[in-house]
Amino acid sequence: MISRKITLAHGSGGVETEEIVNSLIVTKVPAKLKKVLDGIGLDELDDGATISLDGTYVVTTTDSYTVNPPFFPGGDIGSLAASGTINDLLMMGAKPLALMDAIIVAEGFDINDLEKIVSSFISIIRENKVALIGGDFKTIPREDFNGIIISTMGIGISKRPIVDSSLKPGDKIIITGYIGDHGATILALQQGIELSKTSLKSDVKALTDLMIPLIEKYGEYIHAARDPTRGGLAMVLNNWAKSSKSLIVVEEESIPIRDEVIAYSEMLGIDPLSLASEGVAVIGIEGSVAEEALSFIRKLGFKEANIIGEVKSGERYSNIVLYKTAIGGTRILEPPRGEIVPRIC
Amino acid sequence: MISRKITLAHGSGGVETEEIVNSLIVTKVPAKLKKVLDGIGLDELDDGATISLDGTYVVTTTDSYTVNPPFFPGGDIGSLAASGTINDLLMMGAKPLALMDAIIVAEGFDINDLEKIVSSFISIIRENKVALIGGDFKTIPREDFNGIIISTMGIGISKRPIVDSSLKPGDKIIITGYIGDHGATILALQQGIELSKTSLKSDVKALTDLMIPLIEKYGEYIHAARDPTRGGLAMVLNNWAKSSKSLIVVEEESIPIRDEVIAYSEMLGIDPLSLASEGVAVIGIEGSVAEEALSFIRKLGFKEANIIGEVKSGERYSNIVLYKTAIGGTRILEPPRGEIVPRIC
Repeated sequence: MISRKITLAHGSGGVETEEIVNSLIVTKVPAKLKKVLDGIGLDELDDGATISLDGTYVVTTTDSYTVNPPFFPGGDIGSLAASGTINDLLMMGAKPLALMDAIIVAEGFDINDLEKIVSSFISIIRENKVALIGGDFKTIPREDFNGIIISTMGIGISKRPIVDSSLKPGDKIIITGYIGDHGATILALQQGIELSKTSLKSDVKALTDLMIPLIEKYGEYIHAARDPTRGGLAMVLNNWAKSSKSLIVVEEESIPIRDEVIAYSEMLGIDPLSLASEGVAVIGIEGSVAEEALSFIRKLGFKEANIIGEVKSGERYSNIVLYKTAIGGTRILEPPRGEIVPRIC
Repeated sequence: MISRKITLAHGSGGVETEEIVNSLIVTKVPAKLKKVLDGIGLDELDDGATISLDGTYVVTTTDSYTVNPPFFPGGDIGSLAASGTINDLLMMGAKPLALMDAIIVAEGFDINDLEKIVSSFISIIRENKVALIGGDFKTIPREDFNGIIISTMGIGISKRPIVDSSLKPGDKIIITGYIGDHGATILALQQGIELSKTSLKSDVKALTDLMIPLIEKYGEYIHAARDPTRGGLAMVLNNWAKSSKSLIVVEEESIPIRDEVIAYSEMLGIDPLSLASEGVAVIGIEGSVAEEALSFIRKLGFKEANIIGEVKSGERYSNIVLYKTAIGGTRILEPPRGEIVPRIC
């Protein structure tokens, strides 16, 4: 038996997270208690779950936000928690209806800071017309914890939830914006790098104005959708290759990344494909409408959106992601391992 | 402006929690975003919230569990999180359907302990036939936190949610078991008091076998239901007096408390009426059926259940709780203030 202590890698959203969640929880819950009736549940390990009620799916999601520092260029833990929860519902194909928040704050935390955080949270729910219907508030002694944690639950409804395992050969992969901005920003802050002279900032935002019209117009063609947060694009694509038992091929040249994010990643020795984004969607869509949907997405204001690859049947290779580099090479894009960035989201 | 730092009292579930949640959140959310359609939302400050879908209410609740130590006589943070969430749904008059859990664990936490905790959680959901449909798993560096936090969301359905503000004059207040066992146990452990020689232990349990038959038989007569966790019986009764604008009168003699809990409370200088219970319900029920319902509750195995008081119209006094002592005096039972017990649940 190797280590029997929790390491930061267990929470990084990469391979180790998948392994511990599987061994501790997923394999221990009886199959019939992994979902409610024909809903989407624990076995899918998607961003949320659904309960079917007379033809309407109630979509639910839960997340804990622990980002440190709680304030960062582009947002704070309040805007992150609200946007992240709304995005998880949207990625399930749902219209977000309501949120609940459970705030845990350390003794000694500045109440003005808490007010700013809550105010950011409320701004996001206002802008996205989502209700805040309840919550919880707890404090922890300063000797046990410093900072703030916000856990959220989100509730939405959908007539046709998006289940990522439906991805199939011929589908194209669209990404809707620059990747890694959030991860690079938080990582740089944690490393004490001065950000004020750069334009590097978190991309945190709710994707309601993207996903609601996109689902309305192309819903039947969208087979998978996910926001690449912890573990980044590399983790999403690997999850999808595995759950759909296919081969995904992506091209480096087509993936939008800011030069600054690349520069910081190199300096910090981290693969930008593993860095979290908080305002980007990865979408798997039927090949026949992919170009048209891409134009539609760009017209919605997501100008950096691009088709970054496609799903193949994977006769010889399956469950993996191939990455074609700009200089003409091909390598397997592994799911991220190890401690990527602690308290990133 | 007095203190602008968070104190432990802000999270104790007493008056200060109510004040900070009101000033920071409840008053800042626009009225129309406090609920979804005709559901129960943030304005009710009940244990959960509802969304109405074609005559069925989807009931949701969220909670964060931070209890320290995570293992205690009678249970652990896993059984507490699962039972507490199920109970919150039951207290809203719902049949619990599914849970999601967001686990946050410190770097260095023992994985065997984590396995025990998760296993307790899963045992409770199995026993209560509730599904675990998803979750989240994060780690925090050891320098920022020690221990474990479990946030949960629960989903249930109800044809007739219980809204505590419906309590009305003539209603009787029933309590279903000994109060304060959980709070006294955790408090004693935190104070380093040796418990092994006593029978003091947490009462943590899911109340499915009590509430489902009770709601089935007396649902239309139940006007309020709550599990007296943080802030204890004193907080629940004060909340009810306020939300129903009535006077509640309770009698000391009729409230079931173990001698040991009284002894510990006296030793620790705390009012047992403010101590958390985790396996007890307080029910406000129409006076005409109260005795009959009490017999029914006792027959379900809750032998210490008792009618502890009643709701009066409060012509001269309202929004308050009167407490008749065993020796014949009467005093106002104030809602708890100050730091009661940190990390109690």
